[in-house]
Amino acid sequence: MRPARPHPARTVVVAFLGAIAVGTVLLLLPVSRAGSGSASLLTAFFTATSAITTSGMTVVDTSTYWSDFGHVLLAVMTQAGGFGITTLATLAGLIVSQRLGLRGRMMTGAETNSGLAHGEVRQVVILAAAVMFATEMVIAAIFTVRLRVTYDVPLGAAAWEGVFNAVQAFNNCGFSLRGTGLSTFVSDWWICVPLTLGVIVGGIGVPVLHEIGRQSRRPAAWTTHTRLTVGGSLVLLAVGFVAVLALEWRNSGTLGPLGVPGKILAAFVQGTIPRSGGFNTVDYGAMNEDTSAIMIGLMFIGGGSASTAGGIKVTTFFLLAYVIWTEVRGERDVVIGRRRIAEATQRQATAVALLGVAVVATGTLVLLGITSGVTTDRALFEVMSAFSTSGLTTGLTAELHEGGQLVLSAMMFIGRVGTVAVASALALNTRHRLYRYPEERPIVG
Amino acid sequence: MRPARPHPARTVVVAFLGAIAVGTVLLLLPVSRAGSGSASLLTAFFTATSAITTSGMTVVDTSTYWSDFGHVLLAVMTQAGGFGITTLATLAGLIVSQRLGLRGRMMTGAETNSGLAHGEVRQVVILAAAVMFATEMVIAAIFTVRLRVTYDVPLGAAAWEGVFNAVQAFNNCGFSLRGTGLSTFVSDWWICVPLTLGVIVGGIGVPVLHEIGRQSRRPAAWTTHTRLTVGGSLVLLAVGFVAVLALEWRNSGTLGPLGVPGKILAAFVQGTIPRSGGFNTVDYGAMNEDTSAIMIGLMFIGGGSASTAGGIKVTTFFLLAYVIWTEVRGERDVVIGRRRIAEATQRQATAVALLGVAVVATGTLVLLGITSGVTTDRALFEVMSAFSTSGLTTGLTAELHEGGQLVLSAMMFIGRVGTVAVASALALNTRHRLYRYPEERPIVG
Ligand SMILES: [K+]
Ligand SMILES: [K+]
Repeated sequence: MRPARPHPARTVVVAFLGAIAVGTVLLLLPVSRAGSGSASLLTAFFTATSAITTSGMTVVDTSTYWSDFGHVLLAVMTQAGGFGITTLATLAGLIVSQRLGLRGRMMTGAETNSGLAHGEVRQVVILAAAVMFATEMVIAAIFTVRLRVTYDVPLGAAAWEGVFNAVQAFNNCGFSLRGTGLSTFVSDWWICVPLTLGVIVGGIGVPVLHEIGRQSRRPAAWTTHTRLTVGGSLVLLAVGFVAVLALEWRNSGTLGPLGVPGKILAAFVQGTIPRSGGFNTVDYGAMNEDTSAIMIGLMFIGGGSASTAGGIKVTTFFLLAYVIWTEVRGERDVVIGRRRIAEATQRQATAVALLGVAVVATGTLVLLGITSGVTTDRALFEVMSAFSTSGLTTGLTAELHEGGQLVLSAMMFIGRVGTVAVASALALNTRHRLYRYPEERPIVG
Repeated sequence: MRPARPHPARTVVVAFLGAIAVGTVLLLLPVSRAGSGSASLLTAFFTATSAITTSGMTVVDTSTYWSDFGHVLLAVMTQAGGFGITTLATLAGLIVSQRLGLRGRMMTGAETNSGLAHGEVRQVVILAAAVMFATEMVIAAIFTVRLRVTYDVPLGAAAWEGVFNAVQAFNNCGFSLRGTGLSTFVSDWWICVPLTLGVIVGGIGVPVLHEIGRQSRRPAAWTTHTRLTVGGSLVLLAVGFVAVLALEWRNSGTLGPLGVPGKILAAFVQGTIPRSGGFNTVDYGAMNEDTSAIMIGLMFIGGGSASTAGGIKVTTFFLLAYVIWTEVRGERDVVIGRRRIAEATQRQATAVALLGVAVVATGTLVLLGITSGVTTDRALFEVMSAFSTSGLTTGLTAELHEGGQLVLSAMMFIGRVGTVAVASALALNTRHRLYRYPEERPIVG
């Protein structure tokens, strides 16, 4: 055995904790709070965690509790969380996984990798910044004009709300400057479509944007990662849209009162958002049980790797679907489009998904244990929302006592940093064996 | 590519369907039903499915709806399902997986396997019959004496109830000759302990019994399969016991009214049963939300491979826990007690667990979609109970309309035959590639 270096995941964990600490202190300043006095420590901590992890969950009414300065802080923290920290942390994560992958490649002699080489990192960060800036500018401009022209909001206020919402959308966060959220705009295509597209672009992931930028004319040459992410995202968007449209069509609490175009728009928005956006135009708490269960599933899957979205990620989910399919057919290799998926990658995906299930199950149990009168499905929805940094709510978060808020904070943190990364950071340093034990095949199933 | 033989899983699926068809016809005979007329087709089908899959779920009151002849049929079907079909089918499944394993071994040059060679099958069947017969005899004898002496039941009736319950216990089924189930015996150690031990022995699995019989004095020489099953079962029994005892201690609907010894006994029974028994002495429907969630988890895991228990199986669950642990520590091999777990086995476990999740999620969604006024947690409990062939109920099954009963029947069938086996039987015949594609490593998580 040889001693290993400290796990790089610890650096990511510490960076996130540091950012949350700074955010908490800033939100505790009296100037951050509307009216007199300053925020309570827990409220500041929960809100900073929510912003840095780009969840958008709230325990207070964002519009009235925080001052204009506080709102600016939230926008900056969201941006820092979504782009600065998240993207960089995920890039760091990629480097870690490439280091592992490198070891694997040396052992197996594999030919290709995830399509992101070390030297490209600087280039990728610049690209991500450019995409972010351009997307947010377009959304902010449309939002501003629409508010000014149609809703008669003064130009300055309209522009600020436009920028704020653009930042929230691209970063898949869900804070709102209005107490009623965006429900005013439920039938407004000029507001909803740009915001939702912003959520999708922000949630697709830097490596995919990078590759599409380079090779847009040759999808056939895309890496498996890009094909899985793009194809999988389209499937999940369709599932979300059809589920909400079909199951909520006649629900008087959600799509029922809307006209047909309004139903379509609202289904598009509400079907997209669980993939980790955070705003809503209808009440998720009023949805039917089956819609709600599908939303929970979509939240768990989340968006693209190295994106502002959360969840176990689109590639993880679809890769595991291929693993199941391979096993059902009794084939030797997991093959996706003429590429064999490395066994180390399969195991990584298994660990990410199952550890996600374990964390969500534990969080839900703890929440049920420390509260009373909360049903399992509401607890699960809220914990899943936090874990996937979706930030949606059935209304439970606002009612939770301090212990419950801490549980959700922990879920947001673990979900954002990544289950495997958090667990790795907590694990003892690994000593790598230089020998291998004999193989055995226990009976499973 | 070379054409493959038809998948052997189809044989198992057809055998189960045939047994259920025969059972349905027998239960439709007027002589099977108490009073006049005969059972409805759906009731007979549901009950036959429940008996053959050793679930024990009921849509009618077993004690009053079926005649004495019907009760004998249920005992025979339970026995046929639990021992005859289940054990043989599972042995067939083992042969299949060994055939696959053999291919894997030829490729990887692995040294050891699951400890069950082809030539041993006859020996294993005899052993299983002996263990079954001996266990049931002991339980039936204790039960009979106790009923006769303490409850003043006439000897003939006491002996019949003893035999009936012994068959139910060993086969992890849950039919009862009393309308109130076994709640009368909640504080009776002479009744509860033998029945619960019978559930445990029946649910440990033939390969493990076989190996313990051969090598009882050398646990150090046990295969990984036996060590995982025995160790894992002890852990799960402890979790179930502690969870029920701690969380239900003061619940007036469950353990609350009992004295301390009664609480301990009831926690032992109710903590063991979700692993796939089926009887109960307190009402699972009255349990707290968090206890109920833990019971759902225990049902999903289930008992030992090639046993009368259901679920994804103890080895599958703990093997995946080791996979996660290995990934978190960034190690190359999944090592359990100085044995490296084959990558093919890891992938098999992943497929079994995830396909299980997918089936239960789908079943729950369908049940929610076709019923109204059913909460997600109750639907999930009932679907999980059917899938894991546990047969526990919160009371929902008795209220379900025909569509809901069919959903649960499908869940019992899929759960008993095995998700991967059913899916394999449905899949197109596989053509094995004689070449391999280049390897790729998509980013996951
Ligand atoms: K969010
Ligand atoms: K059962």
